[in-house]
Amino acid sequence: MIELGGMGSFHVGGRTVEVRGEPMRSGAVTSTTTLTWDPNGHYAIEAAYVQWFRPARPATDVPVLFVHGGGLTGAMWETTPDGRPGWVELFLRRGVPVFVMDAVERGRAGWCALPGVWPDAPLARSAEWAWTLFRFGTPEGCAARRPFPGCRFPVAHMDAFVRSFVPRWLSTTPAHVAALVLALERIGPASLVCHGQGGEVALQAAAARPDLVRSVVAVELSGFAALDPARHRLLTVLGGLWHDEAASGRRAAMVHFADSFAAQNGRSDVLDMDALGRNGHTHMPMMDRGSEVLAAKVLRWLLDEPA
Amino acid sequence: MIELGGMGSFHVGGRTVEVRGEPMRSGAVTSTTTLTWDPNGHYAIEAAYVQWFRPARPATDVPVLFVHGGGLTGAMWETTPDGRPGWVELFLRRGVPVFVMDAVERGRAGWCALPGVWPDAPLARSAEWAWTLFRFGTPEGCAARRPFPGCRFPVAHMDAFVRSFVPRWLSTTPAHVAALVLALERIGPASLVCHGQGGEVALQAAAARPDLVRSVVAVELSGFAALDPARHRLLTVLGGLWHDEAASGRRAAMVHFADSFAAQNGRSDVLDMDALGRNGHTHMPMMDRGSEVLAAKVLRWLLDEPA
Repeated sequence: MIELGGMGSFHVGGRTVEVRGEPMRSGAVTSTTTLTWDPNGHYAIEAAYVQWFRPARPATDVPVLFVHGGGLTGAMWETTPDGRPGWVELFLRRGVPVFVMDAVERGRAGWCALPGVWPDAPLARSAEWAWTLFRFGTPEGCAARRPFPGCRFPVAHMDAFVRSFVPRWLSTTPAHVAALVLALERIGPASLVCHGQGGEVALQAAAARPDLVRSVVAVELSGFAALDPARHRLLTVLGGLWHDEAASGRRAAMVHFADSFAAQNGRSDVLDMDALGRNGHTHMPMMDRGSEVLAAKVLRWLLDEPA
Repeated sequence: MIELGGMGSFHVGGRTVEVRGEPMRSGAVTSTTTLTWDPNGHYAIEAAYVQWFRPARPATDVPVLFVHGGGLTGAMWETTPDGRPGWVELFLRRGVPVFVMDAVERGRAGWCALPGVWPDAPLARSAEWAWTLFRFGTPEGCAARRPFPGCRFPVAHMDAFVRSFVPRWLSTTPAHVAALVLALERIGPASLVCHGQGGEVALQAAAARPDLVRSVVAVELSGFAALDPARHRLLTVLGGLWHDEAASGRRAAMVHFADSFAAQNGRSDVLDMDALGRNGHTHMPMMDRGSEVLAAKVLRWLLDEPA
């Protein structure tokens, strides 16, 4: 049973863009309703969306804010492709207050459809790119959904996973960080559980407002920014299946980040799933088979319980 | 207290698009990670996203599926711009199983960033357009956020509302309907609570699979499709502030739809907020002050309780 005291969502941050000098437009918004409208006016862009759940009996005063990775949304923390409970539910069952962000231009945050505001084109992700980048298997194995031996990702449900991909821009990181900082100002001090590209966003926000971030759980990060060893705790989560040089390089960058923070006398712990004898984890350990075991370890660390 | 037995989400429907013949690309996905990738491959588009909450002790076997209106996402049912509980929470507190859709190309459903797949350009909505179309006030009153006298929309929080807008296409209704039908096949028979442009989507899905839709709560619809009087029940919800001819025309279309269904001996009820002495409702009655009163009336109707 999940006992909630309340739930809701909000949009936060961003800026207003004014459009001028455009002609009137019209179009059929449904088969029976054609509207004429003035496209000039004020548009809100670059806000983030935050959904929240407050347990009826919180186990901690420090909520967790989930920050998704690139090309995904907060939905990645809600479920697994084969329909098992996601970390949102597992954390709520333990009484942790949960906030889930859709970063700027992803998911329910919305994106800027006004021409010329952002310099670059949006980027989509194919099934094949995700298959190799996320370490599910070799390129040749993608079409048949034949993963690496022992791979824990539920590849039989790869299509469900690919449906959850959303476009992203590569130029919007400063806006992501700004909106996350405003979200933290609204929420109060929180711990950040972040993934992949979202790690850079989370760490830059922690650097900007170190007082508003307690702990960072850094799951398979692809970007970094310096934490404050006097204020922050870091848990680095490493999957497995480091099958080639590029993957090993990404692992080395994560280990280097963890080690550097420890060398500054920061509280730096590492959950290396291979070293724990739980081989076969991928870039998406929160969706892999056994994700609930990892979630329990993360929760113990966040709640500072004995292992 | 909201007692849940489970929660989660899924993506459903859509189709696969294959890209071929494109050159390799590269870009910095974070400040420390530059990737090279092959943009050729298979992309999933036109799925819908559905988030769900299962009460621990359901008051009914028939869940509600919320279908948002144009330019918005499922988030519109979660909260009000001034932070009061949305209908999702109010329905869950009554024990109604809740599903919330983000329609194709809106919110967490994702959209198609591949050039040339959809014929038209995406459409954004300005604060000014929403202000007049949603009947908050006159065009002249928008900048000062000066609403119609008695307007129940929380206009002091108009900026929060505008931040929740997302782009939309006008050409994708068939894909919306197809994905909603697949969602209903997965969920089983449900009642649809729909709004604005989403009404046409909901009603077309009900027409396609009449066995999978029990009741339709039609809130301020802007599009229609025939229901089956032998199978369906219809509750038409009318706001107020019918300030000009265009607005009155939209009201007349809703009343005509309700009357036509009644004339076919369908169970057709109307919640006309003005007639109930609750003047000042807008196109967004689920966000207006007093939205909880309306929610209670809708719940009584859905659960077939005495008024």
